[in-house]
Amino acid sequence: MNSGAVSSNVSRGDPPNQAQTPARRAVSHSALQRFAAKAFQRAGLNDGDAEIGAEALALTDAWGVHTHGTNLLPDYLRRLRNGGLRVQGKPHVTAEGPAWAKVDGDSALAMVTSAFAMRTAVNKARRCGIAYVGVRNSCHYGAAGVYAWQAAREGLIGLSMANDKPSVAAPGSRGRVMGTNPISYAVPAGRYRSIMLDMSVATAAAAKVWAALARGEKIPNTWLLDADGKPTTDPNDFPKGGALQPAAGHKGYGIALLIETLAGVLSGAAITNAVGGWLLGDLSTPTDHGAAFIAIDVKVMMPMDDFTRRVEGLVDEIHNAPRAEGVERIYLPGEKEWECYDRSMKTGIVLPPDVIEKLERAAELSQLDLAKELG
Amino acid sequence: MNSGAVSSNVSRGDPPNQAQTPARRAVSHSALQRFAAKAFQRAGLNDGDAEIGAEALALTDAWGVHTHGTNLLPDYLRRLRNGGLRVQGKPHVTAEGPAWAKVDGDSALAMVTSAFAMRTAVNKARRCGIAYVGVRNSCHYGAAGVYAWQAAREGLIGLSMANDKPSVAAPGSRGRVMGTNPISYAVPAGRYRSIMLDMSVATAAAAKVWAALARGEKIPNTWLLDADGKPTTDPNDFPKGGALQPAAGHKGYGIALLIETLAGVLSGAAITNAVGGWLLGDLSTPTDHGAAFIAIDVKVMMPMDDFTRRVEGLVDEIHNAPRAEGVERIYLPGEKEWECYDRSMKTGIVLPPDVIEKLERAAELSQLDLAKELG
Repeated sequence: MNSGAVSSNVSRGDPPNQAQTPARRAVSHSALQRFAAKAFQRAGLNDGDAEIGAEALALTDAWGVHTHGTNLLPDYLRRLRNGGLRVQGKPHVTAEGPAWAKVDGDSALAMVTSAFAMRTAVNKARRCGIAYVGVRNSCHYGAAGVYAWQAAREGLIGLSMANDKPSVAAPGSRGRVMGTNPISYAVPAGRYRSIMLDMSVATAAAAKVWAALARGEKIPNTWLLDADGKPTTDPNDFPKGGALQPAAGHKGYGIALLIETLAGVLSGAAITNAVGGWLLGDLSTPTDHGAAFIAIDVKVMMPMDDFTRRVEGLVDEIHNAPRAEGVERIYLPGEKEWECYDRSMKTGIVLPPDVIEKLERAAELSQLDLAKELG
Repeated sequence: MNSGAVSSNVSRGDPPNQAQTPARRAVSHSALQRFAAKAFQRAGLNDGDAEIGAEALALTDAWGVHTHGTNLLPDYLRRLRNGGLRVQGKPHVTAEGPAWAKVDGDSALAMVTSAFAMRTAVNKARRCGIAYVGVRNSCHYGAAGVYAWQAAREGLIGLSMANDKPSVAAPGSRGRVMGTNPISYAVPAGRYRSIMLDMSVATAAAAKVWAALARGEKIPNTWLLDADGKPTTDPNDFPKGGALQPAAGHKGYGIALLIETLAGVLSGAAITNAVGGWLLGDLSTPTDHGAAFIAIDVKVMMPMDDFTRRVEGLVDEIHNAPRAEGVERIYLPGEKEWECYDRSMKTGIVLPPDVIEKLERAAELSQLDLAKELG
């Protein structure tokens, strides 16, 4: 077990006071968001959509979740330029009731579609208490937590989940059966920052396997199965037909299937192997990822003060719980991301070298001068 | 990783053709349910409530989930006799909207309260698409899957979850912070039995730790932490202030907090350490467990035929996925339970010796002749 650390499925930003390699640099959150927005505009998005996409990516970097932030910008730009993401795409409701809706993403940038879908869920939950919105014709939507927090910052409990092309094994399978199927929730917590979990159903993120491969390191035998379905410590087995292991075996697998049902089956999107590969697949063909958003409006069911008092009590109880030897703090889910966020806003976002490289590629694609844009 | 087995957090029934100890015997499902109903009646429940309680426990045994079936009957009976469960308790809606309700369980038998709450959720989801029902003044509600399936057998997607007195550590804690907080979902699957997951947020069920302790066996070092918060292989550390480890570390912990929010905080029930101990606590005091039920009516959003065709395709795809060496089948969540159910209905439920002992205690408490009742 992780001693005291609530790490996510993705890599984390380090505090800016750590030793920095020359390529590791702090940039201002607003400059980073402005750069991403300009890049999206130059790919053909209107100002509003470009802003939504940029806001999602810069927020994710501010949380320190660099695998899902502006790191992905050049990949989104390439899809926008090749037609696999439609620059003129307009997410819209195709069917709805008081507490549900189905959204066709029209292959727009998935952050635009997802923000629209969660806004729809929030509006419906404000009247009905709870609402579900299923999305089809979406794509990789960045960090699931962005949309869960979109609800929580307005005082609602938010859930966000998506399916993906399979990369995770089922118990007993040889090869990939389920997507990493991210899921996130966020709960408003009064005087504390929102409780927020963002996880994939795999033991470890694919990004961690790729990183070990790049560094020539072994991995724990609980992360990956080789092409024969056997646990392996060699990350090179991943591109050779290996599959990520589901977290906690049948539990991660079972949760993956719930997410596939709500985000893929019920939404009308592509399911498992029918989902297109967004990074390595044909960049001119939409992927038809599915997603699901659920909002629960606390105020409809309970005075908000009562709710926040109860959540604050729960947070206090966990903060004050006895700690194991050597553990300084017990964290709530999301607490480390919020601390990184505060540092990011104060002293800038510390971007690792691989993200800087991706930003340089995004600048090239957009004919922008990165150094000038980031100041 | 579990090789091909979708095992739950609880022990499973073995097929009846296995070598049986003298004390292991097959009983008919209907006789077992009838016996449990009579025992509940003799404890003071009306016929309808007794039947609901008996049906839940006998179904759970038919699935092979013997830790949460009639094994618990004497404990429910003792609480009913001592007032911690109220024989005259009447679960009722205290507040509601079109897509939500809050239920006060009135400390009735929790299976009665839970069935009422899920029925309320199903009725509301039929009109609104989705509905949430939060429950307070409940108690240990048996297997979470009973209520998820209650929705699925009527064509809806069902989710069921509950909080509990803490027995699980948070990452970094010394001692117990969260309950095992069970969660279950069930999805109607057309020509296949419902996909159904029923899990706790701990790596392994407390029942497995107790069983190892009784047998004098060591346990894997991923199950338990000792009173100092360190991984241990000695099950004797559990009663000495040890805590179960959360499944997949921060992921199981994070899911536990989502369940605590929906089942405890939002429902108005007791939270974490305020929840009473239902087995070892004062039997005359209600425990105020919380629970949450969510129903999603597929038909409101999509023609049922389309949905089932899509789920059947997903099931077929998983069944036909390449298998690791030595693996005969890849199971869907719940599939093993449904196979056990079919055997149970055909050749009787094979009860392990410890359950037979519990039934004998229940018979004593109820002044019933077990041998005569089970035929």
